[in-house]
Amino acid sequence: MDLVLSPYAESDLPDFAPVFRAIVAAGETYAYPESLSDDDIQRLWWEREPGRTVVARGRDGRFLGSAKMGPNRPGRGAHIGTASFMVAPDARGSGVGRRLLDEVIDWHRRAGFAGIPFNAVVETNVAAVRLWQSAGFTIIGTVPGAFDSATHGPVGLHVMFLPLG
Amino acid sequence: MDLVLSPYAESDLPDFAPVFRAIVAAGETYAYPESLSDDDIQRLWWEREPGRTVVARGRDGRFLGSAKMGPNRPGRGAHIGTASFMVAPDARGSGVGRRLLDEVIDWHRRAGFAGIPFNAVVETNVAAVRLWQSAGFTIIGTVPGAFDSATHGPVGLHVMFLPLG
Repeated sequence: MDLVLSPYAESDLPDFAPVFRAIVAAGETYAYPESLSDDDIQRLWWEREPGRTVVARGRDGRFLGSAKMGPNRPGRGAHIGTASFMVAPDARGSGVGRRLLDEVIDWHRRAGFAGIPFNAVVETNVAAVRLWQSAGFTIIGTVPGAFDSATHGPVGLHVMFLPLG
Repeated sequence: MDLVLSPYAESDLPDFAPVFRAIVAAGETYAYPESLSDDDIQRLWWEREPGRTVVARGRDGRFLGSAKMGPNRPGRGAHIGTASFMVAPDARGSGVGRRLLDEVIDWHRRAGFAGIPFNAVVETNVAAVRLWQSAGFTIIGTVPGAFDSATHGPVGLHVMFLPLG
């Protein structure tokens, strides 16, 4: 898909907030609260330095998705990064997630991070698990029943990891 | 050890903040920033409802340690808990950690949580790993090199888990 990546800006919020709410309400991939205000959503998603949030849009300006990235932990854990992704439901299966993932991995390499854990990948989110695996991530372990999936009930959360360097 | 557990109160801060700073500065167990103000430390450690923070003191009032506990994630992850522990360096090896752990497990059971993950247990913190294992926690997986230990360099962070119910 022909898309343009740019840093997240406040003007992205009207497009991003409904996508965030739709994904959280679907109850299959993210353990965020359901009743966040637009400001809450922006605060949660917009990573400032040393982190970063990017937005993907089509050439026509259509909002396609977003990824946020940054240190996994402060202090003695800050040499390891992490990231989260949201792809607009009507843009799924068109390579947006892959493009955002490539950008996230490149950014971590450029910034000198030693690796990228994804701390909570819902095991029934098979498309995401396969995408991360295709980029070299492996499943480090699975916390059983830690996510209450809307359709599957309690399912595991994978910790996945990609070493860099 | 003869100790008394009570809910964390603002009056605990002058005793807790130096312990927090000493543990973080030692660089062996926690990836918190090193230059936090007293207010930052209290904000980070004092879990309000639906979470909880407890303080352990000797019968003479001496500060021995503290534990914080609460939902591991919001929304569809809130049926799973988690906790963090700090024992005063001069109270180590006297059973304070064990007492705090028992309290944390009891609290999770009473509150109906389905399990307790510890998300980032430094693998070289052998005393803690053994204590958690003695209570039934198992190592789910280890993110390699994710903690920059002051004496060992990059070491792994275990995800440990105790199912309840």
